[in-house]
Amino acid sequence: MSTIVNDIEVIKANHTKIHDIDFNNLKFGHVFSDHMLECDYKDGKWHTPKVVPYAPISLDPSAKIFHYGQSIFEGMKAYKDEDDNILLFRPLDNFKRLNISAKRLAIPELPEAFFMDGLKTLLKVDSDWIPKKEGSSLYIRPFIFATGKGFHASPADEYKFIISTAPSGAYFAGKVKVLIEEKYSRSANGGVGFAKAGGNYAGQFYPTQLAVKKGYQQVIWTDDNTHEYIEEAGAMNIFVRINDTLITGPTSDRILDGITRKSIIELAKTEGIPVEVRKITVSEVVEAAKNGTLKEMFGAGTAAVISPIAGFGYKNEDFDLPELENTFASSLKKRITDIQTNKAEDPFGWRYKV
Amino acid sequence: MSTIVNDIEVIKANHTKIHDIDFNNLKFGHVFSDHMLECDYKDGKWHTPKVVPYAPISLDPSAKIFHYGQSIFEGMKAYKDEDDNILLFRPLDNFKRLNISAKRLAIPELPEAFFMDGLKTLLKVDSDWIPKKEGSSLYIRPFIFATGKGFHASPADEYKFIISTAPSGAYFAGKVKVLIEEKYSRSANGGVGFAKAGGNYAGQFYPTQLAVKKGYQQVIWTDDNTHEYIEEAGAMNIFVRINDTLITGPTSDRILDGITRKSIIELAKTEGIPVEVRKITVSEVVEAAKNGTLKEMFGAGTAAVISPIAGFGYKNEDFDLPELENTFASSLKKRITDIQTNKAEDPFGWRYKV
Repeated sequence: MSTIVNDIEVIKANHTKIHDIDFNNLKFGHVFSDHMLECDYKDGKWHTPKVVPYAPISLDPSAKIFHYGQSIFEGMKAYKDEDDNILLFRPLDNFKRLNISAKRLAIPELPEAFFMDGLKTLLKVDSDWIPKKEGSSLYIRPFIFATGKGFHASPADEYKFIISTAPSGAYFAGKVKVLIEEKYSRSANGGVGFAKAGGNYAGQFYPTQLAVKKGYQQVIWTDDNTHEYIEEAGAMNIFVRINDTLITGPTSDRILDGITRKSIIELAKTEGIPVEVRKITVSEVVEAAKNGTLKEMFGAGTAAVISPIAGFGYKNEDFDLPELENTFASSLKKRITDIQTNKAEDPFGWRYKV
Repeated sequence: MSTIVNDIEVIKANHTKIHDIDFNNLKFGHVFSDHMLECDYKDGKWHTPKVVPYAPISLDPSAKIFHYGQSIFEGMKAYKDEDDNILLFRPLDNFKRLNISAKRLAIPELPEAFFMDGLKTLLKVDSDWIPKKEGSSLYIRPFIFATGKGFHASPADEYKFIISTAPSGAYFAGKVKVLIEEKYSRSANGGVGFAKAGGNYAGQFYPTQLAVKKGYQQVIWTDDNTHEYIEEAGAMNIFVRINDTLITGPTSDRILDGITRKSIIELAKTEGIPVEVRKITVSEVVEAAKNGTLKEMFGAGTAAVISPIAGFGYKNEDFDLPELENTFASSLKKRITDIQTNKAEDPFGWRYKV
């Protein structure tokens, strides 16, 4: 069945999978909604997207995604409030960052209307898939990859943009122990670390496996030259609280301009929390852990919102963080999720009603 | 039709495309032979490969290749000599490097027999696709990518290994002008630069496009920290000849251990050419260009074998290399291709008869 919503053609799935899903026991990104948005770049332009049934993609074995890693993505969430309004959080920022990533990966930039109208149409079609349970959300995955053919190491001439959605529970459960990395790194100066490029993530898996074998759950990435500057926490931005000051590293060509990161910075400032955006050294964090001024560390990203860190390892020594009653992590996470889910006023204009 | 060759099942294509191909006008990697080798990793192991008709691959939209760049590849060539023997060049080195890449990208390592027997079976089935024209070859592309599903940023639980082949002409035509990079970089210390990971290539496209706009064809990559050390030439290793000494950078976690590169080093030594494997600085290359001691620069890799450089740009200044009658590039290229194609003795044991 084909209909038109927001000028976008919708081809409905013949049957829904929604009754097979236990919405009370959702993992992260493991089950997928009935439909997806699909949009092709060929003959030098992006063509109008369609909402189509979620279904396998067929690609030539020479498609450049398989060979040269030309892929980018975004992560977003949709919520439903008590009145069943569909809510997004700063979606235009995801759109803009997708195109920043696209440019760096030599992928043609996407028109805003294709992204925004496509996303809104998809969410309306699959609105029953948006969980209402506290902590759950509809995780949204926009991504672009190279479908053009050929073994020549050059940008593809064809691409596919897809938005797929997955009703999801929380990304992490509980506090994590992290290892400050002394050997491996995730990005280079002048590289693609600031982009949400697929290859940035594949390169993290092996060092993370090594950390897991040592008893940690995540790696704290440091700069590739000196390993003296703290850059990211796993696939998240990182915040460190020393005494009552919240510190995060500046964005750069190595560090992702996280939307949760910048929201936390703004929120903290309005709460009167002193915030410093500056380079953080491993030495100062270790020193602060030793003298008791290191109060909190946490990762920040769309999937987990805020992921508190229980302790860290560095040079074969383990450091535990204190168990505080009232943490910046929990109060800031509550403020952000309350804004996201329309349980609180939004003085920033971040909430976006579909 | 299904048969067994070398214990590997062969499912033949219903018809051949070979009569549609103009073997006198082959580009690089644009047309593909009738069959491919396909091998799946699931339930914790690699399963016996099959030769199957070259055909599209169907993947779930959540397959991790689309999102997290978990992919690696190799590049090889097959030749036919005058007696129609099928010849490879140091294929075990490609197999070993594939597994080195696999490990770094958290991809399960592949058994040697699946690679070697699979490759030999495929080449026998499609032996008519191996061009005999001088300079042409059957380009071989082994690659592995993540097929496992899910949006969680973690290694996939399923993978596909494919070998596809493409009858090909020369990769580059003529000498190239290159730009020594001062801002962008292709790899980090502790990163994946030494691996043939897809993401390493996608990151090169945009800086290369910028260089092309300035009138160059390729980028000379420098280290990401100081941009003072010369590391690679496009997707190739780089050699510099100063006076009569051939210099190439040492392999590292940023530089690919190229099979052509190490073959050139060995060959040059047997020819009595002084070879230095050491860091090369941009300053010494510029200085040598200015004082006339810079005789040659060339890239080395499987696709092009040796790709001579005509000149380079650096800090808005252009430097031309001399037009020599007898170059190391041409004599070494001839020696390698003569060994590859069985036109010369092979004292090294590099040639491999299928």
